[in-house]
Amino acid sequence: MNEPATAIEAAVAASPLHQLKDELDIVIPTIRNLDFLEMWRPFLQPYHLIIVQDGDPSKTIKVPNGFDYELYNRNDINRILGPKASCISFKDSACRCFGYMVSKKKYIFTIDDNCFVAKDPSGKAINALEQHIKNLLSPSTPFFFNTLYDPFAEGADFVRGYPFSLREGVSTAVSHGLWLNIPDYDAPTQLVKPLERNTRFVDAVLTIPKGTLFPMCGMNLAFDRQLIGPAMYFGLMGEGQPIGRYDDMWAGWCIKVICDHLGLGVKTGLPYIYHSKASNPFVNLRKEYKGIYWQEDIIPFFQQVVLPKDCTTVQKCYIELAKQVKEKLGKIDPYFDKLADAMVTWIQAWDGLNPTSASFSNGKTG
Amino acid sequence: MNEPATAIEAAVAASPLHQLKDELDIVIPTIRNLDFLEMWRPFLQPYHLIIVQDGDPSKTIKVPNGFDYELYNRNDINRILGPKASCISFKDSACRCFGYMVSKKKYIFTIDDNCFVAKDPSGKAINALEQHIKNLLSPSTPFFFNTLYDPFAEGADFVRGYPFSLREGVSTAVSHGLWLNIPDYDAPTQLVKPLERNTRFVDAVLTIPKGTLFPMCGMNLAFDRQLIGPAMYFGLMGEGQPIGRYDDMWAGWCIKVICDHLGLGVKTGLPYIYHSKASNPFVNLRKEYKGIYWQEDIIPFFQQVVLPKDCTTVQKCYIELAKQVKEKLGKIDPYFDKLADAMVTWIQAWDGLNPTSASFSNGKTG
Repeated sequence: MNEPATAIEAAVAASPLHQLKDELDIVIPTIRNLDFLEMWRPFLQPYHLIIVQDGDPSKTIKVPNGFDYELYNRNDINRILGPKASCISFKDSACRCFGYMVSKKKYIFTIDDNCFVAKDPSGKAINALEQHIKNLLSPSTPFFFNTLYDPFAEGADFVRGYPFSLREGVSTAVSHGLWLNIPDYDAPTQLVKPLERNTRFVDAVLTIPKGTLFPMCGMNLAFDRQLIGPAMYFGLMGEGQPIGRYDDMWAGWCIKVICDHLGLGVKTGLPYIYHSKASNPFVNLRKEYKGIYWQEDIIPFFQQVVLPKDCTTVQKCYIELAKQVKEKLGKIDPYFDKLADAMVTWIQAWDGLNPTSASFSNGKTG
Repeated sequence: MNEPATAIEAAVAASPLHQLKDELDIVIPTIRNLDFLEMWRPFLQPYHLIIVQDGDPSKTIKVPNGFDYELYNRNDINRILGPKASCISFKDSACRCFGYMVSKKKYIFTIDDNCFVAKDPSGKAINALEQHIKNLLSPSTPFFFNTLYDPFAEGADFVRGYPFSLREGVSTAVSHGLWLNIPDYDAPTQLVKPLERNTRFVDAVLTIPKGTLFPMCGMNLAFDRQLIGPAMYFGLMGEGQPIGRYDDMWAGWCIKVICDHLGLGVKTGLPYIYHSKASNPFVNLRKEYKGIYWQEDIIPFFQQVVLPKDCTTVQKCYIELAKQVKEKLGKIDPYFDKLADAMVTWIQAWDGLNPTSASFSNGKTG
C-alpha cells in the first residue's frame, strides 16, 4: 500500500474502523460521471463501490482513478435477475437497492452523487462513513428514551431513571444520517421556502423509539445488510410508475416495523453530509403528488401493522408485510397490488443472489 | 419600571415572551439562602417566585433583594392543606409540587438552587426560561418523528415524507430542559464515572414520541399547569418514605402516559442550565436503591397502562392511574398502596385550591 498522501488519509487509515473496509460496500446510484468522489477520496477510497447506473445503459459513467468498483447498468440488471428484474425501478434512484442485493458484505453505505463532505462547527471535514460505522457497531435503545441522547457516545451515558435492564440495548440495523445546506423537503415545502438552508449542526445520534415511524431519506444512509438487508427494498418508482420520491420513505416504513418486530435498532442524527443542490420542485411535485395523498392512508397502515410471532426472519416479515399491503392498501390504488407483488419478487431475487441469507438471522454471511 | 440596567435585561424586557410574566410562576424548592438567583436576575427578576422551603421551618431563607416572591415552609403547608398535607413530601425536593398547586398561573418553571446560567457554544448566556416558553407555545409532534427535530424552530420544517395531516401538531404540555456540566446520573453511574461532565451542547428540541417513556428530571422543567398540572405530582419521598430521587421520575411517567392519552405533547432538549454540583453518590445510593430495583416493574406497568376513554380530564386520568397503581404495583411493596392513596389526596388537595380546575380541559384558569 502506498504512503497516505494527506493527514486525513493517515487518520482514516489509522482508525480502528478502517478494518471494516472488507466488510462494507458503498452503493451509489447515478446517471452521471462520479466526479463528486474526488472530495470523498480520503474517506471512501479504501472501500469497494457498487455503482448502479440508471437510465441509458449505453452511456459511459466515468469513475475517478484509484477507486475500486463494480458497475451495473440496466442491461446487467436484466441479465442477472431475468424476469425478476421487474422489481428494480428504472429512471429513479430507487434502482440503488439492486446494489444492496448484489453486495456480499455485511454493511452498506449508500450516498447520492450530489452529496459532499460537510464540515463540523469547528471547520473540520466530517468522516460520514466513520460515524455511520460507529452508529452501527454500538447498540440502540428503542424501548426507553435517553434524554442525553446516545448513551454510548463519548462523554455520555444513561441518565438517572433509565432502567438498568434496558441498558444493554439491542443491535443496530440502520444508521440514518442528515444533511446540511439543502434540507430534504417535499415539493410543496421547497416551493414555499426556496431559500431555506439547514445550518443547524445538531451534535447527537439517537435511537428512534419502538413504535415510532420516521421519514427515512436514502441520501446518506448505512445499514447492516445481514440484519435488515432483505427489507431495504426501495419499491417501484420512476418509469411506468405513478409516483417517485417515495422509494426511501417506503423502505423506511418497512424496515422500521420489521426492526420493531425483530428487536433491532434504528438510529438517526450524525453524520451530516453537505447536500449541494435542490432538485427541481416542479418535477418533484409531479412525482410526489399521489404519494402525498396516499401516505395519509399508508402511515396509519404501518402504524397498525402487526407481524405474527412466527415471522422470525427479515424475509418472513417482509413476505407477510407484502401480503398485508395487498390486503389493506390495494384498495387505495391498483399500484399497491403491483407493489406487493414486487415485494415478493424482490425477496425471491434476494434469496436467489444470497442463497444462505435465510440464515441471516443467526448472523452468518451469504 | 426602572430603566433596565444591562443589555441582557433590555433584551429580556424587549422579548415578546416577556408578556408572559403575568402568566408564569417560578417554583424553587430549597433549604438554603437563594444566592443563586443573583446570576439569574436579568432573566428571572420580572417573574413571580414561589419558594417551597424544605426542612426546618424555623430557619430563615434569604432571598436576594428585588425579587417578588411568596414562601411556604412546612408549617404553611400543614396550615393550608390540613390533613391533606400528608401528600406533600418532607425533607426532599419533591415538596416542590406544593408550589404547583398554590400557583394560580398558566405556566410553571421549576429550577433547582444549584443550577446556574449556562452558555451556548458562542459564549452567550442562555435565557433558559425564554426557550421553555418557546417550547410550550409551539406545538408538539408526538405521532411521527421529524428527522430535523423541532419543525417549528427557526430555519427548520417538516421533512419530505412527513404526513401533512400531522403537521398541525398538538398542544405542548411539558418542556424538559437539560444540563451542562454535572449530568443527571444515578448513584451507580456517579460512583463509576465521578469525573464525567456533560460538555455536549445539542442544539435541538424534540417531541418525545407517543408511547415512549423518558426519565424526566425536575431540575430544569416547565409545564402548562392548565393542561397537565394535576398530574405533576412528585410523589412520596424523603422523611418516612423508603425511597428518594424518584420524585421527578414518577411525575414523568405519570404525565407522559396522561399526555399520550389526552393527545398532548412533551418536549425535551433545549434549554440547558449549568448544573454546578453533584450530590453525594453514597447518600444517593441509599435513597435510590429500592427505586432502581422497583423501577424494573414500574416501567413495564407504565408502558402497558391503558386509560379508559371516559378519562377526559387530567384529574380523571390521574385518579384512574392511582387505582391501577394500587392494583398492579401494590404487590411489589406496601409503599405503592400508600403512594396510590397519596395520589388521590393530591387531586383532592389540588381541586380544593383550584376549585374550577375541573374545567381546565376547556382552557380556563382557576
